[in-house]
Amino acid sequence: MIKIHFNHNEITMKSPESQPVTAIAHPNIAFIKYWGNRDQQLRLPCNSSLSMNLSGLETRTTVYFDPSLHKDVFILGGERITGAAAERVSAFLNVVREFAGVDSYAQIESQNNFPAGAGVASSASAFAALALAASTAIGLELSEKELSRLARRGSGSACRSIPTGFVEWQAGSSDADSYAWSIAPAQHWSLVDLVCVIDKGHKAVGSTGGHALAGTSPLQSLRLAHVQERVDLCRSAILARDFETFAEVVEEDSNLMHAVMRTSNTPLHYWLPETEVVLWMVKSWRKEGIPVCATVDAGPNVHVLVESAHANWVEQQLSRLPGISQIYKAQPGDGARLI
Amino acid sequence: MIKIHFNHNEITMKSPESQPVTAIAHPNIAFIKYWGNRDQQLRLPCNSSLSMNLSGLETRTTVYFDPSLHKDVFILGGERITGAAAERVSAFLNVVREFAGVDSYAQIESQNNFPAGAGVASSASAFAALALAASTAIGLELSEKELSRLARRGSGSACRSIPTGFVEWQAGSSDADSYAWSIAPAQHWSLVDLVCVIDKGHKAVGSTGGHALAGTSPLQSLRLAHVQERVDLCRSAILARDFETFAEVVEEDSNLMHAVMRTSNTPLHYWLPETEVVLWMVKSWRKEGIPVCATVDAGPNVHVLVESAHANWVEQQLSRLPGISQIYKAQPGDGARLI
Repeated sequence: MIKIHFNHNEITMKSPESQPVTAIAHPNIAFIKYWGNRDQQLRLPCNSSLSMNLSGLETRTTVYFDPSLHKDVFILGGERITGAAAERVSAFLNVVREFAGVDSYAQIESQNNFPAGAGVASSASAFAALALAASTAIGLELSEKELSRLARRGSGSACRSIPTGFVEWQAGSSDADSYAWSIAPAQHWSLVDLVCVIDKGHKAVGSTGGHALAGTSPLQSLRLAHVQERVDLCRSAILARDFETFAEVVEEDSNLMHAVMRTSNTPLHYWLPETEVVLWMVKSWRKEGIPVCATVDAGPNVHVLVESAHANWVEQQLSRLPGISQIYKAQPGDGARLI
Repeated sequence: MIKIHFNHNEITMKSPESQPVTAIAHPNIAFIKYWGNRDQQLRLPCNSSLSMNLSGLETRTTVYFDPSLHKDVFILGGERITGAAAERVSAFLNVVREFAGVDSYAQIESQNNFPAGAGVASSASAFAALALAASTAIGLELSEKELSRLARRGSGSACRSIPTGFVEWQAGSSDADSYAWSIAPAQHWSLVDLVCVIDKGHKAVGSTGGHALAGTSPLQSLRLAHVQERVDLCRSAILARDFETFAEVVEEDSNLMHAVMRTSNTPLHYWLPETEVVLWMVKSWRKEGIPVCATVDAGPNVHVLVESAHANWVEQQLSRLPGISQIYKAQPGDGARLI
């Protein structure tokens, strides 16, 4: 089993619940990206990052630890899942079990209300919801910081779906200080993320595999050399609601991450031609004075970020572009929570 | 034969020379790119463009009209050339012959001192030198404007290798007013173009075929919507020697052309991973205060533009990057000339 590093002073042990516990978490869109780990096992990132939770899009997960089970049972969208995805969930639950000193297996039922694996980070909301539901179901009462650290073990960016609104994930120096916190509540800035779905297919190389390639790009060191400046600039821009500064740093950071991806060995080309069309059109609208910018995660979809007063106009324009099969509209979202 | 549209008031007919005539022309690097034609046959471009001739790199071409020949004989780099390249030369000479009222075939000997077809525009210097040598050998005395129009018929960007130094090609409204002129002599600004050769192989899709695809990209209309603003901005920056403005508009224009290329049907991907590494490193050096920027033509090579005082430092840095097989160093060059 994986060794865990929680600070026992900060948590309280409780006796295991026998009741199912349900948690909700939103995916998040990174403004300053996470790409590459210092420690692949513990998912300690090469750099700090910034994100916003996406309301409306959510993973809802129910966990029930059942002493009569002989293995974990993972049901996603109503279907029993086996193989790599189920093993990843079990490996994560092993961390929870070891920490709680409980060895029961669990039944996990999870549902996303958005398509998985195509640029909207379903692994973030999935492991954030799972961290909260599983830790609660097993009888732990974790602080937000500890929940964020725990979620990080399942998927790096999941740690950013624990706190509310606009979130910073501090790279930290070890497992103990690599976690996320809220820098501003969801109400702070009425940004809208118009998630343009270019391709609903599952991406060819998942983020976990991709992170391991980051170091093979000659551009990763350039990306890391100035990333803390971008984090600081972006945080200030968010706090000041300075869209122009925000837009420039968000687009540069996204472009730089994809430059790293395309120049890694093996190269990762996530963009489709339609991706590039959206990016350029967004840039041209901003030149005309519209507060809009765009960012792309590890997939072909484009997250078009726009101040809410202009969201309808931008959505209309986007709907005329080629290759966009769907547009999800998300506002700043809350953190992970029990229901 | 192709109909020609020269204004007969502006030229003087002479009796054909029997002597070989040799001309030299330099390739040019476009700061604001030419991509797409309104008229593919006459090579009337969709937009005006700006460039700089590249001293040191040159095509040297000797033409001799010989009544005893039964067809044109084209020798390039010491080798007899047949097929498409030779037919393109003959089609161009047909324009010259029809205009001069002469039907002799010609012997053409041409040499480039740089590798052909890999991002350094050999077709520009080739057709500029050929236009000057052939028109002179056949007995025409063309003005610079008429030479530029003529060279354009061989290869669009060749019209920019006729005038000296920094050159503007006016898209114009017809064959008559689509030609180039010098906006500043070579001595005006001591820029250096460090041509980073990423791959010496011949590019997969030549510019002539590529231009025909430009209109199939949804981004071409966006590129064209603001290109005249970029021409005006870039011209002003050159005249004022304002490197920062120059750098931003040059890089944006190059990136936008490649976005058009990548999103055309079929898509044209000229960049290699090493291309992208150079582009990002150049951008990071500029952030540190070095007056350097970069542009890419229809190939993987990168033209790194730098003020001469910083050229050695930048060249040293470039030489440490992966995948650059050679660096040519060119300063602003003269126009086409007889020797």
